[in-house]
Amino acid sequence: MAKEKKLVEAITSMEEDFAQWYTDVVKKAELIDYTSVKGCMVIKPAGYALWENIQHELDRRFKETGVENVYLPIFIPESLLQKEKDHVEGFAPEVAWVTHGGLEPLQERMCVRPTSETLFCDFYANDVHSYRDLPKVYNQWCSVVRWEKTTRPFLRSREFLWQEGHTAHATAEEAEARTQQMLNVYADFCEEVLAIPVIRGRKTDKEKFAGAEATYTIEALMHDGKALQSGTSHNFGDGFAKAFEIQYADKDNTLKYVHQTSWGLSTRIIGAIIMVHGDDSGLVLPPKIAPTQIMIVPIRQQQEGVLEMANELKNALTSAGFRVKVDDSEKSPGWKFAEQEMRGIPLRLELGPKDIEAGQAVLVRRDTGEKTVISTKVMDLVAEMPRVLETMQNEMLERATKHRDAHTYTAVTKEEFKDIADNKPGFIKAMWCGCQECEEAIKEEIGVTSRCMPFQQEKLADTCVFCGKPAKTMVYWGKAY
Amino acid sequence: MAKEKKLVEAITSMEEDFAQWYTDVVKKAELIDYTSVKGCMVIKPAGYALWENIQHELDRRFKETGVENVYLPIFIPESLLQKEKDHVEGFAPEVAWVTHGGLEPLQERMCVRPTSETLFCDFYANDVHSYRDLPKVYNQWCSVVRWEKTTRPFLRSREFLWQEGHTAHATAEEAEARTQQMLNVYADFCEEVLAIPVIRGRKTDKEKFAGAEATYTIEALMHDGKALQSGTSHNFGDGFAKAFEIQYADKDNTLKYVHQTSWGLSTRIIGAIIMVHGDDSGLVLPPKIAPTQIMIVPIRQQQEGVLEMANELKNALTSAGFRVKVDDSEKSPGWKFAEQEMRGIPLRLELGPKDIEAGQAVLVRRDTGEKTVISTKVMDLVAEMPRVLETMQNEMLERATKHRDAHTYTAVTKEEFKDIADNKPGFIKAMWCGCQECEEAIKEEIGVTSRCMPFQQEKLADTCVFCGKPAKTMVYWGKAY
Repeated sequence: MAKEKKLVEAITSMEEDFAQWYTDVVKKAELIDYTSVKGCMVIKPAGYALWENIQHELDRRFKETGVENVYLPIFIPESLLQKEKDHVEGFAPEVAWVTHGGLEPLQERMCVRPTSETLFCDFYANDVHSYRDLPKVYNQWCSVVRWEKTTRPFLRSREFLWQEGHTAHATAEEAEARTQQMLNVYADFCEEVLAIPVIRGRKTDKEKFAGAEATYTIEALMHDGKALQSGTSHNFGDGFAKAFEIQYADKDNTLKYVHQTSWGLSTRIIGAIIMVHGDDSGLVLPPKIAPTQIMIVPIRQQQEGVLEMANELKNALTSAGFRVKVDDSEKSPGWKFAEQEMRGIPLRLELGPKDIEAGQAVLVRRDTGEKTVISTKVMDLVAEMPRVLETMQNEMLERATKHRDAHTYTAVTKEEFKDIADNKPGFIKAMWCGCQECEEAIKEEIGVTSRCMPFQQEKLADTCVFCGKPAKTMVYWGKAY
Repeated sequence: MAKEKKLVEAITSMEEDFAQWYTDVVKKAELIDYTSVKGCMVIKPAGYALWENIQHELDRRFKETGVENVYLPIFIPESLLQKEKDHVEGFAPEVAWVTHGGLEPLQERMCVRPTSETLFCDFYANDVHSYRDLPKVYNQWCSVVRWEKTTRPFLRSREFLWQEGHTAHATAEEAEARTQQMLNVYADFCEEVLAIPVIRGRKTDKEKFAGAEATYTIEALMHDGKALQSGTSHNFGDGFAKAFEIQYADKDNTLKYVHQTSWGLSTRIIGAIIMVHGDDSGLVLPPKIAPTQIMIVPIRQQQEGVLEMANELKNALTSAGFRVKVDDSEKSPGWKFAEQEMRGIPLRLELGPKDIEAGQAVLVRRDTGEKTVISTKVMDLVAEMPRVLETMQNEMLERATKHRDAHTYTAVTKEEFKDIADNKPGFIKAMWCGCQECEEAIKEEIGVTSRCMPFQQEKLADTCVFCGKPAKTMVYWGKAY
């Protein structure tokens, strides 16, 4: 047992130090590795397989709404980045600059894309001429670079993977509809596939994207009560179109500016999966996104027939569409159990000589530890598995929602607000007057930022929680990653 | 008809100017667009969909051989790039250098990866300890940057998309087997899926990858008789392992160096698809890789029932697993035909009121122009389509193979060699003494480079075609992209 203990001991408990627990899990579950490139990480097979599943499912949902994938250059010439004033102010301080190509200095330096609005605008300015060319609903899967000072795996790194959708429309209404549509694609994906409940809302002007008219966001609550912005969708109006001269001839033969949107979701979401579902034994993956759903662990595998039976069940379950592995390594069963738990594989099927004799196996759920004895008749197993996985998927969402709701507080007075912010990690719902000064003072004095103005508004009070002036809107506040 | 003519006239004929034909096709088939970023391109939806299909099929084949996907950083610190002497000499002159992060100069400049051997080595040096950690069979899909002076869409650009596999093995034998295995994966993929016949062979020392012990290659012949290196697989022996100190404790408890390989295939292969199969009407896509396999073109679509029938057939064919679109735009049928041909969509189904009355449609093959009248009973159509697509796929490979063989020549004397090189575009098979001086002189005097030493050797003569000394090996020579 010494070895098993070692593996588990290697993780700091969540209670003791959540940040260290997080770092331990990403390393011990073999999701990432650190590199000689400061602030950049290696995404290892277990981490990348998770991203591939996210890509696959999200890409399918995008395409159902008419999205087409493209690929634009990795570099942005400085003059292009500077065309939209707010945008360059937001991004210029945190980009990586390429100044030399081969042995020669460049005439104009270029940054490695931190986001590609300017490139898409440059492209659309050439490609859009008539109303017949609209809408453009393009997306790209790529990596982007932002020169962060402090970094954490998945949550904040100098390079990360993401998708960025960029659309151009004939009318403001169509752009607004697309902005909201894509936010809902993200939200549904998080809830249905990742079992992560999210608050859908709009960012305040202070928190919106550099150059956007409106930024919509989905905000999730992590286990430690901190918020994580999990996906954003921006409506640019015709601001970029004017800066980049993207005009089309409308049916009435007049030239009009297009209206644009962009929306992105990144490898950051893997951080959310870890921090919403994980526990002191490691990662817990929702069945729908888990690269391996069922790990079969043979007991006394050297005994005749055990490995054969394990592989037989694996093949039967694989044929039925499940993602299954057999751990036939030379490690002890206890070590294998600990590894499967650390890696968050949803189900473990334990199978030893006695089980085989009895025509059964022991099925263990990763999230609850619940054990059931289950028939290994292929028909029974294949019939039972979807039910177990679906139950687990649903209960994970329920549990995360309960946790989120239990850590969502309401503040009506400044004192309540301060007390909750100091003592109760979670979301704080409170009314706001709409002034940026107030928002800044709240950040300064209370120590929380506005997460979003939720679409589902509640009237908690008539006045702003901070300044007492008439309230305009309810805001979710919190500490955030 | 004026418009249709315009679309077709927009392409220069292959005979007249092959290079211009190529450029016209990539633009008019809407595969790419040029950008403000010199030497970089936009891959548009039609081009990217092609790459997605290539990725999908190749990734599936990789995974069948045990490959796992990962993601490593985009940047390589200069000191890391310099660790392997031959490698840095090969790549340093053509990398893009990042010198500033945010507002500050970097302590050490970094290049944007031109290829990731050094990063994988750095990673493996940390990650490999024991024989139990081997083999590592990792791959990544990403973009790379090489600062080319002259660029052409897909064939040579400053940034391109590719996959790069990097493996580490306990023994030299295992590394060699993996190197050849992956070359065969590429070759089979090209022949079975892209209908491009390839020569499998080994590069001469002069032409091998910077830092490799052996480079294997697949070489394809384009329509104009020039060769295109379409995929390469390298065996590094333990050279990189020694430079990066990648050692493992073997079963006998001694420390040993790993043996490594790498292998890559890039968006360049799209250039091969265009130049092997295209014709004067545009692109011709092999059915297996075509994003759209069947374009239904309704004739007199304003007439009642025509569009309905077109969509009904589309739905039936889509359900049966085919990739189908209906062109219901307001363009004329002739214009739609020309567009479908330009874009290389394998089959066109023409459907007008008279056809509907007769329960039939006209099916036109893109590659041969062959027209057949076909029953539109769903059962008949779904039964017939696989046969037509498979026949087209097979005949495309046959045609390309015939073309390649008809443009493969044998030279025994220097005079023959020179005559063929000057007058007959294609591969030239000729014996070689194995000296690098001879190889360089051939390039200088004859104007061709060694493409590969094919695995399937033939003995054409006893002496080197150039110097007359005893011959060691048969080489495929040619002019290359």
